[in-house]
Amino acid sequence: MPQLSTRITTLNAGGDDGWGVFYRARAMAEAGAPVTELTIGEHDTGTDPAILDAMHAAARDGQTGYAMVPGNDSLRDVIASRITDRTGVGTTRDNILVTAGGQAGLFAAHMAACNPGDTALFVEPFYATYPGTHSARPAPGPVPSPTRAEDDFLPDAGDLARAAQDSGAASLLVNSPNNPTGAVYPRETLEALSKVAQAHDLWVISDEVYDTQIWQGAHLSPRALPGMAERTLVIGSMSKSHAMTGSRIGWVCAPHEVVERMVDLATTTTYGLPMYLQEGARFGLSQGPAFEARISAPFRRRRALAHEILGAQDRVGLIPSGGGMFLFLDIRATGLSGEAFADALLDTHGIAVMPGESFGASAAGFVRVAMTVPDARFAEALRTLCAFAAEHSAAA
Amino acid sequence: MPQLSTRITTLNAGGDDGWGVFYRARAMAEAGAPVTELTIGEHDTGTDPAILDAMHAAARDGQTGYAMVPGNDSLRDVIASRITDRTGVGTTRDNILVTAGGQAGLFAAHMAACNPGDTALFVEPFYATYPGTHSARPAPGPVPSPTRAEDDFLPDAGDLARAAQDSGAASLLVNSPNNPTGAVYPRETLEALSKVAQAHDLWVISDEVYDTQIWQGAHLSPRALPGMAERTLVIGSMSKSHAMTGSRIGWVCAPHEVVERMVDLATTTTYGLPMYLQEGARFGLSQGPAFEARISAPFRRRRALAHEILGAQDRVGLIPSGGGMFLFLDIRATGLSGEAFADALLDTHGIAVMPGESFGASAAGFVRVAMTVPDARFAEALRTLCAFAAEHSAAA
Repeated sequence: MPQLSTRITTLNAGGDDGWGVFYRARAMAEAGAPVTELTIGEHDTGTDPAILDAMHAAARDGQTGYAMVPGNDSLRDVIASRITDRTGVGTTRDNILVTAGGQAGLFAAHMAACNPGDTALFVEPFYATYPGTHSARPAPGPVPSPTRAEDDFLPDAGDLARAAQDSGAASLLVNSPNNPTGAVYPRETLEALSKVAQAHDLWVISDEVYDTQIWQGAHLSPRALPGMAERTLVIGSMSKSHAMTGSRIGWVCAPHEVVERMVDLATTTTYGLPMYLQEGARFGLSQGPAFEARISAPFRRRRALAHEILGAQDRVGLIPSGGGMFLFLDIRATGLSGEAFADALLDTHGIAVMPGESFGASAAGFVRVAMTVPDARFAEALRTLCAFAAEHSAAA
Repeated sequence: MPQLSTRITTLNAGGDDGWGVFYRARAMAEAGAPVTELTIGEHDTGTDPAILDAMHAAARDGQTGYAMVPGNDSLRDVIASRITDRTGVGTTRDNILVTAGGQAGLFAAHMAACNPGDTALFVEPFYATYPGTHSARPAPGPVPSPTRAEDDFLPDAGDLARAAQDSGAASLLVNSPNNPTGAVYPRETLEALSKVAQAHDLWVISDEVYDTQIWQGAHLSPRALPGMAERTLVIGSMSKSHAMTGSRIGWVCAPHEVVERMVDLATTTTYGLPMYLQEGARFGLSQGPAFEARISAPFRRRRALAHEILGAQDRVGLIPSGGGMFLFLDIRATGLSGEAFADALLDTHGIAVMPGESFGASAAGFVRVAMTVPDARFAEALRTLCAFAAEHSAAA
């Protein structure tokens, strides 16, 4: 066998990709053990049948041929006007590239922003695929900028400016509402980041896929800040807002010149998306905010439940979860690492959560809990987790 | 706006991507002009409703969540056993990565085989996306190896060995049945290529998406030749065999170690494909060869028709079309370039065909004709094309 390229062999250099608990839980469940699965960010509701029916109607109506690579005009129009409505920034279809999910959007944005060897900055803790997404890994590659639990993991502009300066970075990836921490970046944080981006001429790649799940504060897109529309590539997705995780459909919103070049890339990576799937997405987006609120309602409800349960004890701390479908729990009082805690919780109680370490070293001693099972089961699992932490804190 | 990466700005360096006639024909049709569209490789039948219904049933049955990134096991099993049956090479699901179409498979294969800066060899004339697919374009990038009309555009092993030697190539892309020429590479051509690949330690990336459309000779996969399974990455797709062009679903068949690394890449580029779409593909592949023969029957029929029509004149030559859904016509007797011929044919007769030059300089003076309209209309267009060529030959 000839040699594989180093750009592909180094994508997952560590071997363990941080998903060990997830895979172990899945194997246990397949072997028949009762497992409460709180690892991945997936709705327990599935996709609304009305969206699936719209998709099927379009397919049966003959929309099964090659689509235009940038996306159906009708879908791009709906995405653009929804962005205009939500952010106040005038947006047209020329700003929109439809992509095979938010992940494909992240990939395209980094391909556009960074040459091989360029530095892509991102904030730690981070969603697990971020380092690999900056796919061409010759040194120096992506650089995580750590944050601190005592700052609720909000990024510090001074840290980022130093990292940008030291690395000569080409891009900065921000994610609010944040996965894994649930932080909704306040305006002053985003204003400070945007100043850094302008001072160091960075592309800002803004992953906003949780923007319909806001429990506290308000979502602000950095693209809406002065001077930022020309340097911000916003990643959107149907996955979280419309419970279409498996359908892999999202978008990048960017300056027109950038979209044009990303179309060249999309021509070689996917050659467009199914027209009927795009029609399902268009239908979903056309249902308006009430439809979206209904999809996020379970997470709002469970978050309130979690605040109640966590408020009644003092061993497990909660980083203020302003948005998203996860809780980010501080279990440092147990003396255990996030990994040891997650492993033991799975072994002893059949509850699977993600170790903080999977999202970067600054999240050591935390666990991420997905609010993705029915309320009663979720509450019971969270109470069990707290009792488990209390036992271990007493022992520690 | 910060600078875009050169790897994205150089993807389509020429500006005109060779699809000028296609876009012009589409605009004319939208403006209400009668146009016979013979440019792109798309069935006039659409996807079989039974496949669409299988897809919808799976979606309504709840298969709307995240899929495993390598693909559904049930689909990988069906693909693997079909490959075993068709090629005699023992293949299991571990050899299969499901991709977002053949194009995504080509992209993944080149990412795996070549580092930025490595040379990717391909045979000219070539399918239009090949150069861009080797996406990281720092010099020396992809190198086309020209072929000659008098050899029916079959690649010459000596030419390829010299190109591999001179460029230190990492990979060689072959495509049989060939798009645009329709050539089905004979065993001796593939054996000679495989010797070059072994002598120069090349990955062979074998695009076999037209392998169910064989009109003359037999399809042979280079992976089936001695010592080649370990260095061959085969690209397959549902697009042509099952008229699922728009659905964007295909696969790479490769050594297990390569599939594992390509899964790392797929995690960052697409994060899997819709499970319900995979279930539609599994259903389609499970229908067996008679179903596939029915889908390719119109092209077999129209090719026979074309041989009749072309046999009755002597101004337009035909490269033996052993397979695929295109005719590759020699219009050099007219004295016109392929581009001038295609432009004039569209303007005067409303018939859109692709200029040979769109597929590389060695195809100058040829046009590619898709056999993708109903028989009577196809025959009429081809007769018109011949008469048009005859007029121009008389004038030349």
